[in-house]
Amino acid sequence: MRALTLVPGDARPLDVRDVPDPEPGPGDLLVEGLAVGICGTDREIAAGEHGSAPDGDERLILGHESLGRVRSAPDGSDFATGDLVVGVVRRPDPVPCGACARGHFDMCRNGLYTERGIAGRHGYASELWTVEADYAVHVPDGVGRLGVLMEPTSVVVKAWEQIFAVGARSWFDPERVLVTGAGPIGLLAALVGVQRGLDVHVLDRVEDGPKPDLVRRLGATYHSGPAKDVMVDLDPEIIVEATGSRDVVLDAMSRTSHYGITCLTGVSGAGRRLRVDTGALNRDIVLENDVVVGSVNANVDHYTGAARVLAAADPEWLAGLVTRHVHLDDAHDALVSRPGDIKVVLDLAPGST
Amino acid sequence: MRALTLVPGDARPLDVRDVPDPEPGPGDLLVEGLAVGICGTDREIAAGEHGSAPDGDERLILGHESLGRVRSAPDGSDFATGDLVVGVVRRPDPVPCGACARGHFDMCRNGLYTERGIAGRHGYASELWTVEADYAVHVPDGVGRLGVLMEPTSVVVKAWEQIFAVGARSWFDPERVLVTGAGPIGLLAALVGVQRGLDVHVLDRVEDGPKPDLVRRLGATYHSGPAKDVMVDLDPEIIVEATGSRDVVLDAMSRTSHYGITCLTGVSGAGRRLRVDTGALNRDIVLENDVVVGSVNANVDHYTGAARVLAAADPEWLAGLVTRHVHLDDAHDALVSRPGDIKVVLDLAPGST
Repeated sequence: MRALTLVPGDARPLDVRDVPDPEPGPGDLLVEGLAVGICGTDREIAAGEHGSAPDGDERLILGHESLGRVRSAPDGSDFATGDLVVGVVRRPDPVPCGACARGHFDMCRNGLYTERGIAGRHGYASELWTVEADYAVHVPDGVGRLGVLMEPTSVVVKAWEQIFAVGARSWFDPERVLVTGAGPIGLLAALVGVQRGLDVHVLDRVEDGPKPDLVRRLGATYHSGPAKDVMVDLDPEIIVEATGSRDVVLDAMSRTSHYGITCLTGVSGAGRRLRVDTGALNRDIVLENDVVVGSVNANVDHYTGAARVLAAADPEWLAGLVTRHVHLDDAHDALVSRPGDIKVVLDLAPGST
Repeated sequence: MRALTLVPGDARPLDVRDVPDPEPGPGDLLVEGLAVGICGTDREIAAGEHGSAPDGDERLILGHESLGRVRSAPDGSDFATGDLVVGVVRRPDPVPCGACARGHFDMCRNGLYTERGIAGRHGYASELWTVEADYAVHVPDGVGRLGVLMEPTSVVVKAWEQIFAVGARSWFDPERVLVTGAGPIGLLAALVGVQRGLDVHVLDRVEDGPKPDLVRRLGATYHSGPAKDVMVDLDPEIIVEATGSRDVVLDAMSRTSHYGITCLTGVSGAGRRLRVDTGALNRDIVLENDVVVGSVNANVDHYTGAARVLAAADPEWLAGLVTRHVHLDDAHDALVSRPGDIKVVLDLAPGST
């Protein structure tokens, strides 16, 4: 079979090459790969910034935002030939920490997990892949090929879970949420906010392209002014930060209302310093009983939650998030970010586009 | 009766003057003031930096860390003449927000509360005061005059409640806590940490004076090295930040272990800028699923919790926190911070020292 591979830690070009077909173990599904979504993590790995191959391999098969069709499933599993499925990204270490032992491997304490397509395990960007039935999730009816959005949606479902878990420490009945950044994570966070009945506002830099329209079609409000001004005007109870931008992050941490919750989901680059009034930041967080919560990754429950979110969404709206399809043969092109991109999807099946 | 008064917003000297005795309402206790603790907030009010008198009054009676003995109590209340009591600081607005309506006025959403001795209500630094029975808390047997530590302990009990409420969003079984700052809040936070069975470390700048010994007598570990180094060495799951120092706050926000929780309790001054790698800060919080939670004030339940904490503590250890007693006649001296001070207590009863 053909797979999208690279040498982690090395900026040599990606290589779509023939590799041996995977052999399903006793509890595994064998799955025909249909598509993988591409995100910033893939681009960082492709640039040699991080990532690691499985022990003993030089090359890593990329891809963690999966979608496939079951070719064979173990007897007694919940899966049958033809089912659309998504595979979970992270696996706990065989000697799990306390969180991993309870299925909360997204909250791993010792960092000894592996991640498909990222760290120590092959990913899903191949014509065939296997996945343990316990780490496979059904794509709901009606969602179809948009199931490729399941993984980023799982990340957003976890972020919202964090917000409401943190909010539950006292009375919490929020009305207004500001999402900063209208990339896939920001837009999916806005979708979940709308599904939860909140008054959702989304801030991004661009004034044209598909983002403003996608936000409005959710019944949410689009903003493109300076982050600080928008935050001061809205005084949101919740901010979901999905830009990772150094300046926006800082405003997001301090410009919620009383008992505000800022959920950071964007990963920034390090190394550049801003001049920050840390005294004012601290004072604001303390005197308003504010919380800043970081959220990354997802566990199986979050994928299941993501399936519900996608099932409840308008498929046309979801389809609008996928601004570019690229075939496996042109994978290098999918890894290049272009203006107007929201989600780029790499199609894996022969002849698909 | 005599009371410690000042004109809020004005740096004119404090004035101990005769004021009319308070008249208890139908649900009120009449209480002989025994002592008030002095904290940074009192010093800020005395410096004219904030605070407000009750409507219609020019002067505010200071004092929010109270201790008194009941002179008269309403029939049917839980209080009797001679009981040692503490009065709660904050009162919700008559038209309460959703949090205040549920007794969580420490989490007030609209800022329309009043606070005794701080904002819009007279404090407890007077020879007599009244308090609504619902806002009075018994000092447990054996605690006696150390009940003056109840209010700062209530703040710490709330902070710990926040930490464990936030921790409960996944598996949470912490072992190591670092408390930054060995003032009253830091030391009481260390006390609660020890009572909860944690391995407690306390960091402060000083290398001598009573603080190192107080920490060691708790069975905790004292550190006086650079904050960053201590944090890197310990990799604490929890940091309780009680210095309000701009640099320490920043390190505290980013130097916990995976799933770390930093509880900010110190109030910093604003206006000075540090050069901060906000990208690295964000990245650390996101990739470790960390939380930064601000905590201020306390509700009635936290005072009740504080009573339990004080009852379970060694009275000799608690007595060591009170490094200076000053009589009401010399109140100006209590408001001046001196090297070696931990908690300064103003004695109110005639003839007490």
